[in-house]
Amino acid sequence: MTEFGKQIRTAALIGKYRSPDVAESLHALAGFLRERGVHVLIEEGTAEAIGAAGFDVASYETLGEIADVAVVAGGDGTMLHTARRLAQYAVPLVGVNQGRLGFMTDIARQDMLVGMTQLLEGRFMAESRFLLDAEVLRGGERVYQTLALNDVVVNKGDGGRMIEMKVEVDGEFLFVLRADGMIVATPTGSTAYALSANGPILQPSVAGIAVVPLCPHALSNRPITISDQSRVDLTLVPPHDGRVHFDGQARFDAQVGDRVSIARSAHSVTLLHPPGYSYFAMLREKLDWSATPKH
Amino acid sequence: MTEFGKQIRTAALIGKYRSPDVAESLHALAGFLRERGVHVLIEEGTAEAIGAAGFDVASYETLGEIADVAVVAGGDGTMLHTARRLAQYAVPLVGVNQGRLGFMTDIARQDMLVGMTQLLEGRFMAESRFLLDAEVLRGGERVYQTLALNDVVVNKGDGGRMIEMKVEVDGEFLFVLRADGMIVATPTGSTAYALSANGPILQPSVAGIAVVPLCPHALSNRPITISDQSRVDLTLVPPHDGRVHFDGQARFDAQVGDRVSIARSAHSVTLLHPPGYSYFAMLREKLDWSATPKH
Amino acid sequence: MTEFGKQIRTAALIGKYRSPDVAESLHALAGFLRERGVHVLIEEGTAEAIGAAGFDVASYETLGEIADVAVVAGGDGTMLHTARRLAQYAVPLVGVNQGRLGFMTDIARQDMLVGMTQLLEGRFMAESRFLLDAEVLRGGERVYQTLALNDVVVNKGDGGRMIEMKVEVDGEFLFVLRADGMIVATPTGSTAYALSANGPILQPSVAGIAVVPLCPHALSNRPITISDQSRVDLTLVPPHDGRVHFDGQARFDAQVGDRVSIARSAHSVTLLHPPGYSYFAMLREKLDWSATPKH
Amino acid sequence: MTEFGKQIRTAALIGKYRSPDVAESLHALAGFLRERGVHVLIEEGTAEAIGAAGFDVASYETLGEIADVAVVAGGDGTMLHTARRLAQYAVPLVGVNQGRLGFMTDIARQDMLVGMTQLLEGRFMAESRFLLDAEVLRGGERVYQTLALNDVVVNKGDGGRMIEMKVEVDGEFLFVLRADGMIVATPTGSTAYALSANGPILQPSVAGIAVVPLCPHALSNRPITISDQSRVDLTLVPPHDGRVHFDGQARFDAQVGDRVSIARSAHSVTLLHPPGYSYFAMLREKLDWSATPKH
Repeated sequence: MTEFGKQIRTAALIGKYRSPDVAESLHALAGFLRERGVHVLIEEGTAEAIGAAGFDVASYETLGEIADVAVVAGGDGTMLHTARRLAQYAVPLVGVNQGRLGFMTDIARQDMLVGMTQLLEGRFMAESRFLLDAEVLRGGERVYQTLALNDVVVNKGDGGRMIEMKVEVDGEFLFVLRADGMIVATPTGSTAYALSANGPILQPSVAGIAVVPLCPHALSNRPITISDQSRVDLTLVPPHDGRVHFDGQARFDAQVGDRVSIARSAHSVTLLHPPGYSYFAMLREKLDWSATPKH
Repeated sequence: MTEFGKQIRTAALIGKYRSPDVAESLHALAGFLRERGVHVLIEEGTAEAIGAAGFDVASYETLGEIADVAVVAGGDGTMLHTARRLAQYAVPLVGVNQGRLGFMTDIARQDMLVGMTQLLEGRFMAESRFLLDAEVLRGGERVYQTLALNDVVVNKGDGGRMIEMKVEVDGEFLFVLRADGMIVATPTGSTAYALSANGPILQPSVAGIAVVPLCPHALSNRPITISDQSRVDLTLVPPHDGRVHFDGQARFDAQVGDRVSIARSAHSVTLLHPPGYSYFAMLREKLDWSATPKH
Repeated sequence: MTEFGKQIRTAALIGKYRSPDVAESLHALAGFLRERGVHVLIEEGTAEAIGAAGFDVASYETLGEIADVAVVAGGDGTMLHTARRLAQYAVPLVGVNQGRLGFMTDIARQDMLVGMTQLLEGRFMAESRFLLDAEVLRGGERVYQTLALNDVVVNKGDGGRMIEMKVEVDGEFLFVLRADGMIVATPTGSTAYALSANGPILQPSVAGIAVVPLCPHALSNRPITISDQSRVDLTLVPPHDGRVHFDGQARFDAQVGDRVSIARSAHSVTLLHPPGYSYFAMLREKLDWSATPKH
Repeated sequence: MTEFGKQIRTAALIGKYRSPDVAESLHALAGFLRERGVHVLIEEGTAEAIGAAGFDVASYETLGEIADVAVVAGGDGTMLHTARRLAQYAVPLVGVNQGRLGFMTDIARQDMLVGMTQLLEGRFMAESRFLLDAEVLRGGERVYQTLALNDVVVNKGDGGRMIEMKVEVDGEFLFVLRADGMIVATPTGSTAYALSANGPILQPSVAGIAVVPLCPHALSNRPITISDQSRVDLTLVPPHDGRVHFDGQARFDAQVGDRVSIARSAHSVTLLHPPGYSYFAMLREKLDWSATPKH
């Protein structure tokens, strides 16, 4: 992590739609920032849901071009969505959680105005998180492509039965997996769904990609962490089709023979953390790790 | 396990449909048994698929009433299907596998005629396996009911997201699970799907039911084995619907509020094993446990 | 669980030695019980540590013969110790925890006098827990024998390296394990050390014995639960010696070739629980299972 | 991995002591290399065990200074030992296994002369593996220091009971662990002991250090992979002493209050692989991953 000293002239505000709490937070944030001379842009979907109240409204594309920071009010899901939409613009993100602390929304609602002050004072820390670029190939043609900040999951979808897939890394055959599916996760995603499947926790600074089988048939199958410079290819083997999920937000119905090809994206997202932020403290809190054991 | 000394006068033959190998095996078995004075009945769906070739054809109901044994050619899936269909008739089952050794089809195809001789000589061993009786309740009304020899699985089905369910045992609240789903398995099913989800292996003589979370959100969730005299109730909590699978063969689309109520069935199925059968030897073979470690 | 209606004429008091808190609790319990006409016996080791203060003192043997109940103040370790000492006498045990709730000490210190009243009123519930009988055989001779309520652990002891052992169930070969060790646990012990090693939780009413490898070399090794009517034999295979632990309290240095033979003991221990006791509520509390998930 | 084109003028031969097979292999290797004009040095301990047969004998220090390559005959244990002894000299290692394929000894004995020819032809590939530098601090003084290629393990040693340790990363508190111990492993060690404890497999090119609890008391404890630029400190908390193991070869008796401080060493070891070597193929073979599932 490095200091984030950039002066904030334009701030975008983005929130989870259809949440009255979020509306209230965003209005308070918008007013607070305008008072301090910051040009405030409300993302247009957000504005539609909560009203713009006299502020400028902009598309993701526009605010991607001109905002110095995007303040996101919601939970980790809203952060994921925003990260995927803004990845190519390199706008740094600040997350304000609306309920329980999130893995990425690390400013509590009640502290948000203090947080904004610290942000304007240049006291935040910047951390880069890489994304995955995933494409689906059918007969050599790309039929789908998107980004994921947490994970790409290929699973059995609607079918009740296990699926089979050929797993290759950098073009080299690894094994044929029979399982409910496979999760390919970034360090950011290693504490999300992959962790429920016994995947490894990767500190964000570890340049690795976790490849985690979901309920594998073979007892000896284990998660494996590969270099973030490697490409993973998952090819659906007969007889079952599968489904591909990206951050649990986008999905694609894949057919036997389809190849899901996943590698580190050229884009990264920058998360801004308030002073005093600690990844390990967040883990302790979220994963219910006792600071001190109860005897 | 106890000796199975009952004289075989009538044998039912049941096979996986649409498999040429099965047809060949069943014809050979039928001829062999008839030559030894056994009245042979071909299950009607099987007969339709492979031809009856001069043998009597009967419905599951009829052969359930009159057969002394049912010889099943196929894999574990065919055994599960037959067990569920014949559970109420208490016809003992013999499994002849058509490919790789199964957990329940323990006579290899090439040994099947030797096996039949031993069966007629009264040299097989009988082992009882209990089934689960599962019903789905909606607003107090039973909307579905069936049996399972392996497991009842409540999962997220088509939805990409985790589901939530209230878990009760004998009417007592256990916890609210957030997970991909829950597997409730018999000892027979403990080596099937539940094992992929880190469930416990229960020797068939252990009178327990394994309750195994599928990718639970909380890291402290663990499988728990309860008494086979206990009832498990799984109630879908908002906002997500779920899907219920029975032995991976039947399925039911459950809605928020539906309660899946699972208990030991009054019916059991009797598996007949050839002389020399060993549950542990089968486990070693199927689970790739080395008899002696490789140094 | 069944109601425990037996009239309490004589109560034994047993406590963790060298704990001032325990002394205070025991004195309060002793006085309270005497006032209600109960004959109080202080176990002699306990008396030595905390003083008998005018009460009768008795050996484990004596109080085993004449006490109607033994009230144990301490933690689960004290309960284990008492259970092993009194197993042959069938004296029911009541556990009063001195700090955090234990798996077996289910009366909180601040509630202990209320608990005693309820006990005298016949409002407690009795639950039977079986013990393991373990012996070590060397060259056909028994060289050690003891009981365990939680578990028998054969591990590498002082040696830094994995050990090897032949595992047999009812005289039948299961596999050769290469591991840090093996835990053989009762349902009572299934929530203790075995759980740290990914062993299965067995509800106390499940008549099974959990056989749980400790850090097995082979990835396909898994815990297996066998019938409580079965015997497990663990034989140390060259080249490494091992060490055997019983409830983490007694230990024995085993040599290559030694066989540790474990089966359900003829003795059981009866635990008495206060009204309102719930095994599942205790699990939730001890294992940090959320009653309701945090969103 | 990069091509290793360096000309081999001087080769060191090192073998597992007290193994007649190794003696035979080493003599064959020595003769073969001398015939091709390579100056052969036998490590002095090895020479003592198997005889030098007219070849030059040298200490680890000398051969560290002058050898272009060290050929190691034995198993992974011999490779670990050699790596630790030669780490500071940067002599690349070639492993010839004497029995079963090892994780690091990837030339089969029967192929060793073909392998030597390929090595001399410059057809091997070089792969760098980092080591850990571990020191034990007592009252601020360093009381022990060594290197490890696989892992540093702090465990309960002789004691039967769990130990407690404070875990810090880069000086930041992570948690207090109550467990049988903790494994800190390199990617090289991630497929060794750490894997038995459910640690993550890290491809050698992943710049991470796996921190893996051994039978943790808290069910929510999980392995975590941190950056190879981070330092891990493990401090023994009262009341129990512990023991520290380095690659399972060296060990140190640690006391309450001792701090084991572990970071990436400045030294790396270079492993040389024959043409056609594949890390994933080796994993499949060693971990019994099926290339194709058995149906």
